[in-house]
Amino acid sequence: MKGHVVFVGAGPGDPELITLRGWRALQEADVVLYDSLVDKRLLRGLDAELVFVGKRCGRHSMSQERISELLVRHALGGKHVVRLKGGDPTVLGRTGEEALRLVASGIGFEIVPGVSSAVAAPAFAGIPVTHRGLADSVCIVSAHRRNDEKEFSIPRYSPQMTLVLLMAAQTAPSWLKQLLLRGYPADLPVAFVTAATTAEQHVLVTTVAEAAGGDVMGECGSPTMAVIGRVVSLRESLAWYGEDAVDAAMLSEPSPRRPNGATTRRSAIACAVQDRV
Amino acid sequence: MKGHVVFVGAGPGDPELITLRGWRALQEADVVLYDSLVDKRLLRGLDAELVFVGKRCGRHSMSQERISELLVRHALGGKHVVRLKGGDPTVLGRTGEEALRLVASGIGFEIVPGVSSAVAAPAFAGIPVTHRGLADSVCIVSAHRRNDEKEFSIPRYSPQMTLVLLMAAQTAPSWLKQLLLRGYPADLPVAFVTAATTAEQHVLVTTVAEAAGGDVMGECGSPTMAVIGRVVSLRESLAWYGEDAVDAAMLSEPSPRRPNGATTRRSAIACAVQDRV
Repeated sequence: MKGHVVFVGAGPGDPELITLRGWRALQEADVVLYDSLVDKRLLRGLDAELVFVGKRCGRHSMSQERISELLVRHALGGKHVVRLKGGDPTVLGRTGEEALRLVASGIGFEIVPGVSSAVAAPAFAGIPVTHRGLADSVCIVSAHRRNDEKEFSIPRYSPQMTLVLLMAAQTAPSWLKQLLLRGYPADLPVAFVTAATTAEQHVLVTTVAEAAGGDVMGECGSPTMAVIGRVVSLRESLAWYGEDAVDAAMLSEPSPRRPNGATTRRSAIACAVQDRV
Repeated sequence: MKGHVVFVGAGPGDPELITLRGWRALQEADVVLYDSLVDKRLLRGLDAELVFVGKRCGRHSMSQERISELLVRHALGGKHVVRLKGGDPTVLGRTGEEALRLVASGIGFEIVPGVSSAVAAPAFAGIPVTHRGLADSVCIVSAHRRNDEKEFSIPRYSPQMTLVLLMAAQTAPSWLKQLLLRGYPADLPVAFVTAATTAEQHVLVTTVAEAAGGDVMGECGSPTMAVIGRVVSLRESLAWYGEDAVDAAMLSEPSPRRPNGATTRRSAIACAVQDRV
């Protein structure tokens, strides 16, 4: 009897930002193939074979072809396989390619969407990607380039659009030049967000022109994304406010892992979930 | 002692697509202010005051100003308030406006991101918004227009970009014309996805030219989004395959609410979560 594959989005970093459905799929898995950006606490205590298939900055620990082969082999062997990816599995996650391989082998699958880092990371930095009067649209673009790709899919400047560039550190000199050529104002604010929603979160706010003259790669670690647009100005009012104000008001356990807030009471089930995570 | 506010994204429809953190915030709430697109099963059994503040198709049950006032009043009264919104709270959810009101009143808040319908709805329709070789970027645009807004923030056509238009049914005649003016090919595929991830999910696939000549508003209900780009062609291979194949292979309980798959085994904690949801 054939098994099947569940593609699960682990969310942007904090393990509690996985969905209930994704978390349940992990408990039910025989095999979990996971990427490098996945928080290891999600894997703790699972009754499953854990296989690391991550890649970072072009250094592949396993080729895409080999990952697809592994999925097929485990599923044909009758296993319940979870393919765990950072963020959302269909936003630059190559889930389509892996799913097509499953279809070709007659293997069933399910896609469990996740919280995309492209939206969550700005939010945790105090930047809603849309805001009435400032932006009614958001454009998410990969800044990663393969050797055969020269052009970035960056749209021309539109005042009501927020641009989010993922994997932005390494190619910053190239795309920052492109922004100026495509009409982005030199003084438009840019926020670089690194390791979003984790204890290591770091945010650097600058402008298009300043960033173009500086060393982004040197100042930011990986993974870094860039948020470009008028909404970045909201950070001044909205960033960190949550945590400070909640801590002051509640005099209760702050959560170092959660930049934008803290909690006080926990339900029984939430505790059980928490203990596992 | 002041309370605080947690903005929670409920996800795209299926109640199991809320995050663990969002679900826990609901259990801890004294008051929940919720929108119309939120699945009522998320509210079942909560020990909290439930306040409906939804709006649909321009018919407001409560003004934005009144919602912000309510948040402030409850928080100043020492309550733990959850502001529950469909999808992700910062993607066209007006969270920034409400958060600024809290800041002005010295009230702490937290933003718990959610799974955005803009990405999940296409995935459930068998359309990954990005796919190597077809699209390396996705642009999410509101198709809702206020009376003082004439222009849509639709970028010029780029072959490697997927365009997702939210709240797309009512204004379809206007933005379809704009697409042709901005260089989108007449034969580019368009998918209209209605009531994504729920039992009522409905998908209509057509082309830019055909849609411009038809009655989208008449054929689709609400909420409807439009997915425009070459990735729509993947639906032929990826849609529904999951469910059929898993059902055939596993001979087990299919889940009518989950178009792309089914599951067989459930862990103890997952069952507890499931029972509450």
